[in-house]
Amino acid sequence: MNVRKISDSTVRRLSLYLNQLRALSTRGTELVSSRELAEGSGTTAAKVRKDLSNFGSFGKRGQGYRVDELRESLEQILGLQRHWRVAVVGAGKIGTALLGYRDLPVRGFEIVAAFDTDPDKTGRDVFGIPVYSVDELETRLREDRIGIVILATPPAAAQEIAERAAAAGVEGILSFAASNLETERAVPVRWMDVALELEGLSFLITSDENGETV
Amino acid sequence: MNVRKISDSTVRRLSLYLNQLRALSTRGTELVSSRELAEGSGTTAAKVRKDLSNFGSFGKRGQGYRVDELRESLEQILGLQRHWRVAVVGAGKIGTALLGYRDLPVRGFEIVAAFDTDPDKTGRDVFGIPVYSVDELETRLREDRIGIVILATPPAAAQEIAERAAAAGVEGILSFAASNLETERAVPVRWMDVALELEGLSFLITSDENGETV
Repeated sequence: MNVRKISDSTVRRLSLYLNQLRALSTRGTELVSSRELAEGSGTTAAKVRKDLSNFGSFGKRGQGYRVDELRESLEQILGLQRHWRVAVVGAGKIGTALLGYRDLPVRGFEIVAAFDTDPDKTGRDVFGIPVYSVDELETRLREDRIGIVILATPPAAAQEIAERAAAAGVEGILSFAASNLETERAVPVRWMDVALELEGLSFLITSDENGETV
Repeated sequence: MNVRKISDSTVRRLSLYLNQLRALSTRGTELVSSRELAEGSGTTAAKVRKDLSNFGSFGKRGQGYRVDELRESLEQILGLQRHWRVAVVGAGKIGTALLGYRDLPVRGFEIVAAFDTDPDKTGRDVFGIPVYSVDELETRLREDRIGIVILATPPAAAQEIAERAAAAGVEGILSFAASNLETERAVPVRWMDVALELEGLSFLITSDENGETV
């Protein structure tokens, strides 16, 4: 696999294709066309073929893709043959919502620990997941072999936690705190920020109104 | 303004630049360099200049950008001179967390109504925002002049609500439900899906390990 510059939106579409392939696989469907994958992902058949061509040669002209083969390839490309162990830092509203999110283990991400600074929240289980004091962060990240940390702290706390998690060896961070994060050890970070997404939506709507192509 | 193809990641960075410009503006700072904007956004000065050059000519070589001027231009580009009225459909954990999110009105997005199907949740205020029955969706969207709907429903309900909201005239949808949405009247949609973001992160980590440049 020789990947050059793969855009975020391509990676998102790969996830959408994979979701469909998993559903098809469960139903026992053996073949799928690029047109079918496109329809379920809000894109075009040409785009499906182009996205996949970044990673090799899949499918046969006129026959489509073998569902299980393509599913396995996409899982490999997205790093999902591995089972990810995840921790959530911050057991407020968003953090707690994540702990109860049943879709995550199905998609290969198991939340095994949560952390908070509030003694009223720590020392108990939420949806079966233990909530530890942030004091135990490094110890637990290492002992529980956590690969990914989800930051659901107030923005002011995010930088310190990111730095500590990176130093403790986590491989990636998903941050709900909008602030920019800098860690001494470079770690991939992705953001989920409602305000940022709403601004992106506002841009789409506005440029649409101006008759521009986005 | 003649915008061609602006990528999602460019729009995200424009939001990050705008955040900084607003903070600088509050502090009374008059000038900012592309290097300073880059540092606060995790990118390079060249990228800042390239991003902005999509929308016109800003700043003077060696002098930097006038903070208030660039802030206003970015607000205009992102469609944020307008004040957006927003509704949240689904008053579960995520929906409720959004209603309490104080950053949104500051960024120009005021949540003015929420909807749910559960009679125990409707007919009262949450964080000062009225929660209506979904039966009232179309009436309230129109009367409250809602521009953007945030879908925080279970995935199975998302399609129907999206269709109804689009038919009632909303201009954009932000969906926390991963499912693909199709509406008769075309409306811009953006997604926030934790599993999708984690898969994107898994891709970044995995391709990094393989020594590839992403």
